[in-house]
Order: sequence, then C-alpha cells, then structure tokens
Amino acid sequence: VRSTKSSRFHDMLGAAARSGTLARIAGVHDGLSTMIAERACMDGLWASGLGISTVNGLPDAGLLTMTELAATVACIRRCSALPLIADCDAGFGDVNVVQRMVRLFEDAGADAVCIEDKQYPKRNSFLDDQVLEDVDAFAYKIWAAKNAQCSDDFAVIARLESLIAGHDVDEALQRAEAYLAAGADALLIHSKSADVEEISEFVRRARAMSCAQPIFVVPTTYYRATTETLAALGVTAAIYANQLLRASMTAMVNVLSVLERDCCTTRIEPDIASVHSVLDICGTQKLLSTVAPRHQEDHAGRSGDSGDDR
Amino acid sequence: VRSTKSSRFHDMLGAAARSGTLARIAGVHDGLSTMIAERACMDGLWASGLGISTVNGLPDAGLLTMTELAATVACIRRCSALPLIADCDAGFGDVNVVQRMVRLFEDAGADAVCIEDKQYPKRNSFLDDQVLEDVDAFAYKIWAAKNAQCSDDFAVIARLESLIAGHDVDEALQRAEAYLAAGADALLIHSKSADVEEISEFVRRARAMSCAQPIFVVPTTYYRATTETLAALGVTAAIYANQLLRASMTAMVNVLSVLERDCCTTRIEPDIASVHSVLDICGTQKLLSTVAPRHQEDHAGRSGDSGDDR
Amino acid sequence: VRSTKSSRFHDMLGAAARSGTLARIAGVHDGLSTMIAERACMDGLWASGLGISTVNGLPDAGLLTMTELAATVACIRRCSALPLIADCDAGFGDVNVVQRMVRLFEDAGADAVCIEDKQYPKRNSFLDDQVLEDVDAFAYKIWAAKNAQCSDDFAVIARLESLIAGHDVDEALQRAEAYLAAGADALLIHSKSADVEEISEFVRRARAMSCAQPIFVVPTTYYRATTETLAALGVTAAIYANQLLRASMTAMVNVLSVLERDCCTTRIEPDIASVHSVLDICGTQKLLSTVAPRHQEDHAGRSGDSGDDR
Amino acid sequence: VRSTKSSRFHDMLGAAARSGTLARIAGVHDGLSTMIAERACMDGLWASGLGISTVNGLPDAGLLTMTELAATVACIRRCSALPLIADCDAGFGDVNVVQRMVRLFEDAGADAVCIEDKQYPKRNSFLDDQVLEDVDAFAYKIWAAKNAQCSDDFAVIARLESLIAGHDVDEALQRAEAYLAAGADALLIHSKSADVEEISEFVRRARAMSCAQPIFVVPTTYYRATTETLAALGVTAAIYANQLLRASMTAMVNVLSVLERDCCTTRIEPDIASVHSVLDICGTQKLLSTVAPRHQEDHAGRSGDSGDDR
Repeated sequence: VRSTKSSRFHDMLGAAARSGTLARIAGVHDGLSTMIAERACMDGLWASGLGISTVNGLPDAGLLTMTELAATVACIRRCSALPLIADCDAGFGDVNVVQRMVRLFEDAGADAVCIEDKQYPKRNSFLDDQVLEDVDAFAYKIWAAKNAQCSDDFAVIARLESLIAGHDVDEALQRAEAYLAAGADALLIHSKSADVEEISEFVRRARAMSCAQPIFVVPTTYYRATTETLAALGVTAAIYANQLLRASMTAMVNVLSVLERDCCTTRIEPDIASVHSVLDICGTQKLLSTVAPRHQEDHAGRSGDSGDDR
Repeated sequence: VRSTKSSRFHDMLGAAARSGTLARIAGVHDGLSTMIAERACMDGLWASGLGISTVNGLPDAGLLTMTELAATVACIRRCSALPLIADCDAGFGDVNVVQRMVRLFEDAGADAVCIEDKQYPKRNSFLDDQVLEDVDAFAYKIWAAKNAQCSDDFAVIARLESLIAGHDVDEALQRAEAYLAAGADALLIHSKSADVEEISEFVRRARAMSCAQPIFVVPTTYYRATTETLAALGVTAAIYANQLLRASMTAMVNVLSVLERDCCTTRIEPDIASVHSVLDICGTQKLLSTVAPRHQEDHAGRSGDSGDDR
Repeated sequence: VRSTKSSRFHDMLGAAARSGTLARIAGVHDGLSTMIAERACMDGLWASGLGISTVNGLPDAGLLTMTELAATVACIRRCSALPLIADCDAGFGDVNVVQRMVRLFEDAGADAVCIEDKQYPKRNSFLDDQVLEDVDAFAYKIWAAKNAQCSDDFAVIARLESLIAGHDVDEALQRAEAYLAAGADALLIHSKSADVEEISEFVRRARAMSCAQPIFVVPTTYYRATTETLAALGVTAAIYANQLLRASMTAMVNVLSVLERDCCTTRIEPDIASVHSVLDICGTQKLLSTVAPRHQEDHAGRSGDSGDDR
Repeated sequence: VRSTKSSRFHDMLGAAARSGTLARIAGVHDGLSTMIAERACMDGLWASGLGISTVNGLPDAGLLTMTELAATVACIRRCSALPLIADCDAGFGDVNVVQRMVRLFEDAGADAVCIEDKQYPKRNSFLDDQVLEDVDAFAYKIWAAKNAQCSDDFAVIARLESLIAGHDVDEALQRAEAYLAAGADALLIHSKSADVEEISEFVRRARAMSCAQPIFVVPTTYYRATTETLAALGVTAAIYANQLLRASMTAMVNVLSVLERDCCTTRIEPDIASVHSVLDICGTQKLLSTVAPRHQEDHAGRSGDSGDDR
C-alpha cells in the first residue's frame, strides 16, 4: 500500500547489507518481465531504458520520451510491489525538465530514478565520441531532482559514465564526491570492462573516502563476477539490466525459425510456456465471478478471493 | 508508405492464394516481437489481445481498454510495414464504441480488425459459461464497423466462437452467413480441438456454400497441423497467435533460475542475444550523426543512410 | 504530499459540515480549468465525464475509455492538491473492470470515484429509454470497488439515476439503502428538475432513515438554488459539473465571430486573459534558471524558489 | 479520408492565394476548441505549444514531451479534417529526435510541423537571454525533418526567432535563405512588436529575393493589423495562436467569481452554452441506436445517419 511504499528502496538495501550480500535487481521492460522477476524472488526492479526503448522499437539513443518511459514504469508498478528504479538517461532535458521528471516518476510509482552524467541531448555513441556533462551542471541536476521529490524517501541515483567515456577512476571519484555533495542518495558506477578491476578500485577508494552511500553496478560485460564477488568488493546492489530482454529475443527468433523449417510449431511446444501458465501469471484465477450474488452476505464469503489481489 | 497501406491486407491474401499456400501471420505483443516477425519473413502481424494484455500485466478478460490496445498497435505499425490485424475482442462495447474503435485502429495503422461474437462485457471463461452474442446484435456490430471505416480497403474479420462455446459446425455456418451478409470481409473460425476435424468440416462446407471470403484459423491447440495441411483444407491464413509470447516467458524464467543457482549469468550468455544484436534490430546503425555538416551539400551524401529508414 | 492525500476527501466534507455550509466542487476538464478552480478557492474537484469527453471531441456516451479518463485525472492531480472525485459513469464494465478502475484512479491521484446505476454498456439517452442496472448487480459493483481500493480513505460514491429514469423517490431510497449496505461511502442523487423539490424530499427522507453519509447533488437544471438553500436541505456537497466547460465554449465561439466580422481581434483583446496571465497561472515564474551555479552553496539560496512548487 | 489528406496544407494556401486573401488559422488546444474553429469556418488549425502546455498545467518551457503533444494532435485530427500544423518548438532534441518527431506527427494526422531556431534545450525566456541555434545546425534539423517524412506533401515550416532574440531583419533573411536551401516548405516570421513594421520589411525583402514560399505570421502583439493589411504585405497565412485559450480562461474565472458572490450560477446561465449545445457540437445526434435491427435490410435505411460521421 501507498503508505509503506516510500521506504521500499532503503529497506531493500538495508536488508542486503545486514545479510552480508548484495541486492539483486532485475532489468525489466514490461509487465510480463516484471511478474517473472517478482516470482523469481528478485530484490528489486530496474525499468531499463534500453529494454523499454527496444520493446517500443526504438534505438536507445534519447528517442523515447520521459512520458513514454513513465507509462511503462506505471505498468511495472501495477505488476509488482518490489522496489523500483527508473533508468532516466541524462534526465531528458534541463533542470526544469528534471524536476518534472522526478514528479512524473514518483507519481508513476518509482522508488528511485537514476540519471547519468552524459551530455544531453544524448550523443549517439556509435557514431560520435561520448562526452560527459560538465560536473557542476550535472550536480545542479542532482540538486534539482532532490528538491522536486514529494516523498522523503524517494531516491536519486547518480550514474557515473567516466569509465565508459575513457576517463580514469580518479575522475570518477571526483565526480562522485560532487554528486553526493549535491544530494545524490546513491552512486552507480558503470563499466564496460570484461573484469571487475576498475569497479573494484572505484568501490575500494570510495569506501576509503568514507562514502557510505549505496553503490550500484551493472554486470553486463563482467558477467563472470558472482554476486558474492561483487558483495565482497563492497558493492551494494547488482543490476542485471538487459538479460531478460536478450533471452526473450533469442527465444522468439527460434520459434519462427522452427516454424519456417517445420511448417508447424510442434517441435517447440515443449520449450514454451503453456497458455495456462500465461493466464496464471496474470492472476486470471483471482478474477471475480461476473454474476452478482443475490444477497449481500455472499460478498463476505468472496472477499478472501480478492484480498491479496495486488 | 501511407498511399500503399490500404491494400496490404488484400495483397497478402492474394499472394498466398496465387502461390497455393496460406499466409502465415505472427501474433505479436510489442515492437520487438514485431521486428523479429518481420525479419523472419512472416506474411502478416496479429496484434494479440492475450499477448498485449499479458505484457501489460492484465488477465485477458476485457480489462485492457481499446485505447491501450490501439497505442500498442500504433507502436507495432511504426516497427513494420507488414499487413496488421488488431485482435479487438468483442468490440469493447456497443455499436457506437465499435465505430470509434474502427477509426482508432485505422488511425493507428491497422489494416484490419477482428471482432468475436462473444457477449460483451466479456464473461470470464474460467468461472462462468461462455455465452455467444445474439446473431443479429453481432451482425449489427459488423455492419457498424464497416460503415465507420475511412479507407475502402480496411477489413473487418468476424471471429466465430461457436465451436469454443459448445455449439456445432451448423451453428457456426449460420452465423458465418449472417456476418458475411452484414459486410464481414473475412471469417476466423476458432477451435480448441487438438486436431483439425471440426475446422476442416467448417471450411469445406463454407466453401461448398460458395463462401469465397478468406478464412483464418489459429493453430494453438492443433499445432501439429502444418501450413500445407491447413492450406489443403482451404484455409487462407494461419495466425500463430501467442507462441512468441510463450517462448519469451520461458526464456526469461530460465535466465533468473540460472542466476539464482549460479549467482551469475555466465552459463546463459551463449544462449541470449548480444547487446549488439539488440541495438542492431532497432536500427541503431541508421542513426544520423548528431554533428551538423558545415555545408548543405554534405546532406546529400548522407541521404542514402536514412533513405530506407522505415 | 502523498501521506496526507488519503484524508482530503473526508476532511473537505468534515470542514463543510462543521461550518454549517456545503462543500462547493468545481467540474473540471483539464489542467487549466483545475488551476482556475484552485485559485477561486473551490473546496474540491469533479473530473467531469461530460467535460473530458467533450474536450476529447467525443459525445458523452460511453466512448471515452477509462484509461483516457484516468490520464486526464492524473493531469488534474498534478495541477492541484484539492480533493478530487472522478466521474466514472457506470464503471466501464463488469466487476473485474470496476476493480481495475479503482486501482487506476487511485494511482492517478483521485480521492474518490463516483459510479452510477445505469446499465452498461451505456444506452444512448437521446435515442433509447434509460434503463437502470439491477439493484443487486450494482450493489455488487460497489462492493467490488470497495474491495479493490488500497488506501483506507479512498471513497466510492454511488450515483442514483432513479429520478432521471422516471422512477420516484421511494425507488431511489431503496437503492440508496442497498448501495450503502454494500459499502458506498456517499450518495449522489441526480435530478433534472428545474427546482429542488424531489432532491429535498430524497434528502429529508434519507436523513430520517438515519442515513448519515454525505449526499452530493449537481445543480445543473435547478441552478437557482443557492448553496445556503441546498445546505439547509441537508445536502453535503454541490457539484458545479459543467459550467466551466460551457462558459469556455461560448467565449471561444465569440472570439472567432469577432475575428470573422472585424478581420482582427482588437475588439476582444480587453475581454481575454493576457499571455502573461496564462504564463503566470502555469507557474512559469517558479522555473529554475537553466544556468548551473558554479558552487554548491548557491543551490541553498535557490531552494526557496521551488519549495512550494507543487 | 487518408488519400486526400496529404494535399490539404498546400490546397489551403493555394486557395487563399487565388482569392487574394490570406489563410486564417486558429490556434487550438483540444478537441472542443478544434470543433469550434471548424464550425467558424477557419481555414486551418495550429496545435499550439503554449495552449497544449497550458491545458496540461505546464509552463511553455520545453516541459511537454513530443509524445504528449502528438497525442493531442491526434485528438485534434479526429475532430476536424482541416489542414493541421503542429507547433513543435525547437524539435524536441537532436536530428534523430527530429526524424522520429516527423513520423509521429505525420502518423498523428498533422499536415505540417513548425520548428523554431532557438537552442535546445529551450532556454527559459523569463530568466535567461534567448539564444538562437547555430544556423547550420538548424538547417541540418530542417534537412533531417524533410528526409523523414513519408507523404510527399507533408510540410516543414521553419520559424525564425531572430526578431524575438534581438537581431535585425538582415539576420532573419540570411537564416531564411539557409533554411529554404535545406528544404523548408514555408517560413514563419515571429515578432513581438505592437505594429507590423518589421514583419512588413521582412516579407517585402524576402519576396524581392524571389522567395516564393508561403510566409506565416502570428498577430498576437500586433493584433490591430487586419487580415487585409497582412495579405497586402504579402503574408500567406495568419495564425491566431492563443486567443481561444485566453478567452476560455477569462470566461472560466468569471463563472467562479459569480458563484462566489451569488452562491448560485443563475446570473451567468444566459452567457454560457447550454448542455444541449455541448452535446450537439460533439455529434451526439449522430449516434446509432444501440438496439440491433432484426433484419439486415434495416441497416441500409440507417446508413445515412452515419455516412458523414467524420
């Protein structure tokens, strides 16, 4: 319920810290991936910009608008009560846009937004060089975001792109300090390395500088690092940002290539969910009878059916 | 492009008829499944009510609104130029709603809508008996739909639920006749049998009654029937309505169970699409450089890059 | 802020009761009418089905979907913290739709929904006779709505159409009793009479039957009744449902007829709001400078500007 | 219908040119203002950024997303077949965003988009100085827009902000030349002067430089200039961008101040549209009977009712 919503994000991180592990966060892109993540007992949800752009048929290059993203975030929230972080790119515009953004995502049911320190409008990383935002300008965005939130417990995560843009850990740490001073509740250190060395150095030195805030990582390229390894480095949470999307893409390609070859789907039937399990994950069995009971007391007997409907 | 849009639906069916095969239509639920279907050379697209409800986290029980469905149909259209049929349940309301519906889906870029002859509001088939709509009332809906379309070539498909609701082929044929008389452009005969016997009887007798209109089938339960078998029966098109959805569900469940067991995603990496192929399917490589050329003539040299961008 | 949201509806009615007056509620149809109602110190807001259908270009005949209405309700909520009631016609479908509806409107920021006891799908009142819903079926909808809400303080208002459909006050009172027994938090008694006689009889007899719940009225046809008169009858709140819409319609027609006659807008300039006052009501002057301050301490000095931004 | 849509924009301007007058275009912000403009025989529609931001409760400062704007444009299109121009600020982002924008607005039913040569993200003109976009960068946006359109007849209007930003007519003419060379179909010269002197000079000199393209103006501040005066200067079309919005704002404020003073709405009843005229403008009388006719031949008799429903 609403009244407990606000502490979900901090509770997730606190629980992970107390148990000596890290929080495992699933990157989701729609209601189905969300329901699957919840059933798999993930600790939280990441409304992935890449994932949500892709299921909208758009390259992840600043083309999806913040209201389109917020609509999917609202859908994700309706499907799960897990802590939910919205991946908000560079914040979709200037500080006033960032303030509107925070309110939109808070209203949509997100517990946190994550914004990254790339220049806006997004440069297309496949044709041009990545350019980082000026550190003061990005700190100002962080400050604007924090000043726009309604609930005290809403969180703003500053995502550091230094290591992606060719800078070193020193540069990332300087930015981290500025963003935390501006009010960031947590850091996300991004890396495209195949191993955890630069992540490890960043976390170790940040902790040494007495940074107590949560640190998020995204093990897409360094997927060999286990959650234990990452937790031991001092990482607070790992975001598995796009594996669900990528798995579903391969599975769908396979279905149609079997159909092409066999002219029927017999061979893939054992490998795909039944229609019944699709209906089941959506809560079809919790639907009320559409026939009205004749007497009011009948309602009482039914209330158990819908009591935990959300 | 717009100007050729209107004949896509009839062209697809004509091409299949001339080649002695049937049209293969992929049930899709978002932009990604659409792009995959297009790359796999499917003949057409079915914007699946079950699929789109599910990715919105909703049971397929009349809960998704027609404007939510139309928004996904517009997204699907932006991702592909294939013939596109929108699965519109029982039409979302009375005849006036049906007329608004036709305009909404035509504007969204659909080439056809399919409406089914179940009572509206939808009875929940898991708690109650299926009840068919009165035949005149449903014929009136078909008539209203046909009178609302703007483009001459927009099509209305009448979906027959007789065999699902426990009636026989006679009853289905009587309804088929009434719906065609009211203006339906095509029929969809639905069956939950594991074999094609009742479908076969329906198609044979319909053709004997000189029904020349296209007949669609949905081989979900009788998946062993090949496209050749179905074409030989006289079926015009087969809709693979939910296999992409079901495959993606299983694939996503698998990812998270590997992560749970292994504490990392190493083992599933070979089985999931690369980030690069996700970017590729969205057309990332077709993006323009964000840096303005200094002289206008530079534009000309670039136009080839975006010429076929859609 | 969210945490105090839930009691807004009951606080509004309590305040009116304590002061011996009734609550005055403005029917609004978009963000601008909402901001105007708030500045005019109205006590609450009614997201009008007629108004919102009209600004969407649709007849008020069950054509607007509940998600379209909910999108406007979310916009209204972003513009004002006043108590907000959503006018939800007959509930947009069966009991399962009603349960989804309640969650959608609660998420959209409404404090209450109002549903009416007409049959669904809505009969077109200009061509057919009005038909009331079966009393048990409607009571079941009320019960379903109450069981779907998340916040304890969310309210469900049962709107009685008996007097519109040609029934008498006895019939309305019997229905009122059944709806309150099913959990309705308040009643709305609708009348198209030019005077308050039937409203007066209904309220007097309901109070005599010890109905303590709030009673709402809509003085569209009996506009001569003052708020004092209505309060003296025992009415709790009056909804001025469509006067803002109707006034704006006449004003816009006038502008274009002056332009037609004069070939310029000089003559109406004194009678229309300035561009400055349009910018002002939207909070343009509260926007942040888009230039980042060089030092973090600058932010502190600015926080006063945006402190009450919502 | 779709097939004639594409030439609406050019037809409107051609008709005005042949008759020696200019086209009068109404700034609209929703479906109601659109239906009023159509009934008043305006020549075209301007989906106003200021108007649509305002009815969404947002300052006109780059906060409304392009998908929010496109949703309103689609609503406007559903209400009228008049030529429709979407006011797209600075294009909402980089050239790739501009290309997505063109497709979105073409799909939404617009005949043209207008983009302005201010820097993006939009600078807040009330706190900061206006800064124009680099001329080559903006020409590149124009080129990108023209290369993204599907229909040959879709138009891109380049809006010149030189005179607003403190530059002179020379600067505006240089920009005009570059934008036309990049493919702009028309120019919009903006001015905040109280008279037509600078507009007059711009148009005269542009025509002397053999600019044959349509030139639009927005007589908000120089409202004393009649359409005859403007036509005589060589202006092709005048956009009355925000008068409908401003008139409705004043009218709504008046309603609530009368209610406050009188405690009832009696005094304003003669000055506001009747409920009947609200229903009438939405086409309520064209709704079909919801009762199905018993025989198909009945449908034929009804088709006249809905034949011109759009």
